[in-house]
Amino acid sequence: MENAAHFIITYRISAGSEDDAALFAEKIGTEQSVEMPLEAVPKSGKPSLPDIIEITQAEENLWDTTLSYPKTLFDGDITQLINVLFGNISMLHNIKLIDIGQEAFREHFHGPEFGIKGIRKKLNVPNRALSCTALKPIGLSPGELAENAYQFTMGGIDLIKDDHGLANQKSADFRARVSACIQAVRMGEQVSGKKTLYFPNITTSPAYVLDRFHEAVELGADGVLISPQLTGIEMLHTLSNRGHIPVMAHPAFSGSFVIHPTHGFTPQLYYGTLWRALGADAVIYPNAGGRFSFTRKTCGEINDNLRTEFLGFKSSFPTPAGGINLHSLDEELSYYGNDTIYLIGGSLYKQPDGLQSATSKFQNVLKSYE
Amino acid sequence: MENAAHFIITYRISAGSEDDAALFAEKIGTEQSVEMPLEAVPKSGKPSLPDIIEITQAEENLWDTTLSYPKTLFDGDITQLINVLFGNISMLHNIKLIDIGQEAFREHFHGPEFGIKGIRKKLNVPNRALSCTALKPIGLSPGELAENAYQFTMGGIDLIKDDHGLANQKSADFRARVSACIQAVRMGEQVSGKKTLYFPNITTSPAYVLDRFHEAVELGADGVLISPQLTGIEMLHTLSNRGHIPVMAHPAFSGSFVIHPTHGFTPQLYYGTLWRALGADAVIYPNAGGRFSFTRKTCGEINDNLRTEFLGFKSSFPTPAGGINLHSLDEELSYYGNDTIYLIGGSLYKQPDGLQSATSKFQNVLKSYE
Repeated sequence: MENAAHFIITYRISAGSEDDAALFAEKIGTEQSVEMPLEAVPKSGKPSLPDIIEITQAEENLWDTTLSYPKTLFDGDITQLINVLFGNISMLHNIKLIDIGQEAFREHFHGPEFGIKGIRKKLNVPNRALSCTALKPIGLSPGELAENAYQFTMGGIDLIKDDHGLANQKSADFRARVSACIQAVRMGEQVSGKKTLYFPNITTSPAYVLDRFHEAVELGADGVLISPQLTGIEMLHTLSNRGHIPVMAHPAFSGSFVIHPTHGFTPQLYYGTLWRALGADAVIYPNAGGRFSFTRKTCGEINDNLRTEFLGFKSSFPTPAGGINLHSLDEELSYYGNDTIYLIGGSLYKQPDGLQSATSKFQNVLKSYE
Repeated sequence: MENAAHFIITYRISAGSEDDAALFAEKIGTEQSVEMPLEAVPKSGKPSLPDIIEITQAEENLWDTTLSYPKTLFDGDITQLINVLFGNISMLHNIKLIDIGQEAFREHFHGPEFGIKGIRKKLNVPNRALSCTALKPIGLSPGELAENAYQFTMGGIDLIKDDHGLANQKSADFRARVSACIQAVRMGEQVSGKKTLYFPNITTSPAYVLDRFHEAVELGADGVLISPQLTGIEMLHTLSNRGHIPVMAHPAFSGSFVIHPTHGFTPQLYYGTLWRALGADAVIYPNAGGRFSFTRKTCGEINDNLRTEFLGFKSSFPTPAGGINLHSLDEELSYYGNDTIYLIGGSLYKQPDGLQSATSKFQNVLKSYE
């Protein structure tokens, strides 16, 4: 179905009959390639057109249609590939991308630079599940955020990320916050006797993300957090390409592409396949049972796509977030296993005995499954 | 409702009762600010919380809830403002942003650099509607694209933009394509005796958009085309801030934020208010009656938001696209008037007497309403 010059996309589309599905598939293929009436396409534009290679019925009125697109439509420009995947058809209902063939990702994508193994190596934790929390809320001073980071680190947390809303607010500007938190984490490590990684949020204007990334590296951050859908998705690839420190991806502003049953991408394709191919070393996604709406099955499939052999890419750490607390952790572990980062934010802050004690309990649960 | 330190957002949310609406509004406000349980928010985080200032019933089970947010949540970081507007709640159903107060845009946004008046001045066309077409399809060589540009220009077209999928494909790499097309347009102007503007597409990896922008300026492009949702929305602001040449915004990859009745932004808020504030001199949106699904009323409201007095910003050119042809042009003009760019792509290519003749007819219709 694929060859070196083509890649396939499978869409689940709504149509009353196979003939209608074929017409809809042709419309999609034209829209996403030549974007003009077929009868007006000149000879040198014809090779840009995709072929419909399969239409199968998935359910009543739902058809899985597979199109084979020429790679010359993007020629290595990843942002243009995103445009071919879902640019104009983002304005249409009843189209869900359920598969993208691996040929789309060969050559120009390289997957995570560190991935599960690389992050484990930095922590010297070869097997057990990892703990993660978020520094928050917006409004705290660098000193207050650093004090929280210190408590978490003394409790032995594996990974601290900034809240995804911490940018460069006057209450805690980027440089002051990151400097203070790195210092606090390094001090806390002296108490805990173990490594803790701190990932500041570098999401900002796409024109300045790289500056902030290099500032984070220079200040000694252990990784960074970015919301790719806010900065332009390819920014993830650009950061990963630098190869300096791990990149954790946050789903802010991406929900509109994944939560509608008959529109957008499946979550497993978007967070699993696409973000991993773009180089996310860890992918945060909304956990089942949390404030958002994914099912256990969907979360499991995201995890599979992040971890399974795919084009030789390193595997990415699934990072389910939302709805996890110290009591539910055993259950979460039974679903997602040890090659997972468990992100507990708000509920750790509610623990009565303080952040260090709450973190120790968190670590103890994870260690009990080692 | 607003003061210098706060801005309001009005959400239309689904809820069975006013009490449920209030609970949902509180959940939204917490999610988009402190993102932690209210009881865990420390003293210095409290000022980050929004206030619910109004809840009114819009329809059965639909409530318009207005929240007042502190501007300290973003402190001038526009990408972080987008995150506050719809970051995490993009992962939820039943929330539609229907209004954003002007205080959000004061100070850090400046609106279009050229706008309707600036583009008219470049063309020396003070009153009538403007014509626009697209160079396409992908696969044509620079010479073939330039030949089309030459034909359109000889026919007197006002504005030629690249197809939004033309990136840096081997068939027509950016520099070769833009050079050839600019030369062709300048030659065609000698025949037509009037000005034609050429806007190449500079959408690519967000890390390299500015390089491509400066290359376009250096090559003598009259403006640029960009798909902000592919590059990170704030890129629009960054380009406009440079102030060199006009920026036309394309809706690729943005549909998921606007087409769902109870999710995302209203199209008039997103394409009208937000993209204008970010500095788009012209905004392409899917026209009613075209391949996509907006109503005439929605299109009219987008136009209103692009043109009406708002914080002293220049007005932006509405650019409806899709479903417009030479026969429907009179009707379109009756709806949208002269302060509009009419974009006819595919159907011009279908005209039997060639592109120059088709363009002359296009111009003649617009002139007849001058």
